[in-house]
Amino acid sequence: MWDYHTPGIPDELFERTEDVPITKEEVRALAISKLRLKAGYSAIDVGCGSGSITVEICMQTKGQVYAIDFDNNAVELTKKNLAKFGATTAQVILGKAQDVLPTLPQVDAVVVGGTWGDARQVIQLAVERLKNGGRIVIDTILIETMYNALAVIREMLLKDIDITQVTIAKARKVTTGTMMLARNPVMMISATKAA
Amino acid sequence: MWDYHTPGIPDELFERTEDVPITKEEVRALAISKLRLKAGYSAIDVGCGSGSITVEICMQTKGQVYAIDFDNNAVELTKKNLAKFGATTAQVILGKAQDVLPTLPQVDAVVVGGTWGDARQVIQLAVERLKNGGRIVIDTILIETMYNALAVIREMLLKDIDITQVTIAKARKVTTGTMMLARNPVMMISATKAA
Repeated sequence: MWDYHTPGIPDELFERTEDVPITKEEVRALAISKLRLKAGYSAIDVGCGSGSITVEICMQTKGQVYAIDFDNNAVELTKKNLAKFGATTAQVILGKAQDVLPTLPQVDAVVVGGTWGDARQVIQLAVERLKNGGRIVIDTILIETMYNALAVIREMLLKDIDITQVTIAKARKVTTGTMMLARNPVMMISATKAA
Repeated sequence: MWDYHTPGIPDELFERTEDVPITKEEVRALAISKLRLKAGYSAIDVGCGSGSITVEICMQTKGQVYAIDFDNNAVELTKKNLAKFGATTAQVILGKAQDVLPTLPQVDAVVVGGTWGDARQVIQLAVERLKNGGRIVIDTILIETMYNALAVIREMLLKDIDITQVTIAKARKVTTGTMMLARNPVMMISATKAA
């Protein structure tokens, strides 16, 4: 299906449905990059949506991945995409991040995507699920989530904090030439849990 | 030094000099992603600069990489960075891309970074060095290079053409809060040589 070594599977290769969001190729490749993965690493994907990040983590690590979403359509779609890409090391869990996170073991990497109610609490719980030296990546299009994420990350004394805004535009051929179509800026915050 | 599986080595880990450019972490991670590498792949890095992309390709593929730059400072810096990261499969060549490219074997991936005189000719020669099914990625901050790259890519009947503009901003802490500092937009064109 996709046997390249590098992350950033083209969006069109994933199963999609209208009501479930996907982290698009370029933002996804950057999130995977900032997670700093190794073979065998375990991970949690909070708000897995279409499962594109879960799939990429599985392909990079072949380790145990827990994917969480509160929307059953997202859970079903994630399962479908895992099967499509032959990724067998993920467990997809239907539920609210606040309820599911405390039941999971500590992992090497956590990615928090999507948007929900209490960002501060979810990120705090996510950091608690990280092993020492583990990495967290939060990506959001919401100013409020960014603000709260940054506050929690600083309160919890994480190190190696990186804050990056990514703005992608993609070309479309029109009759008179090639124009660039803007996408929404995404804020990405990443950090390492102090050992 | 850096034993993660995923691309996107932090910029500050590379040796740097003032006069030699570096492809920064996020743009570099995206270029590697769009190259779609596999273990054992061979590659050419045209305009290797600090060697950061050459290093990342070596770490992804462990395959033969040819790095070309016309500036001896860039060649020396690339060698230094290869040694720093323990990458032993690259050959660094001092010379103009126009002269060096025709002497190289066909490879699985070519990345063209930096800027020079005749973009059209260099990209044409670069595509000729690609095996069928191989990938080319061109990244540039120049409108002229983008225009010429696109023209050549379309003339040479490459397929799966993607044109992405990436604009990165990075946070800086100031006394009153956290501000975002804009970087220059980078245009990235990637394509597959038709089999």
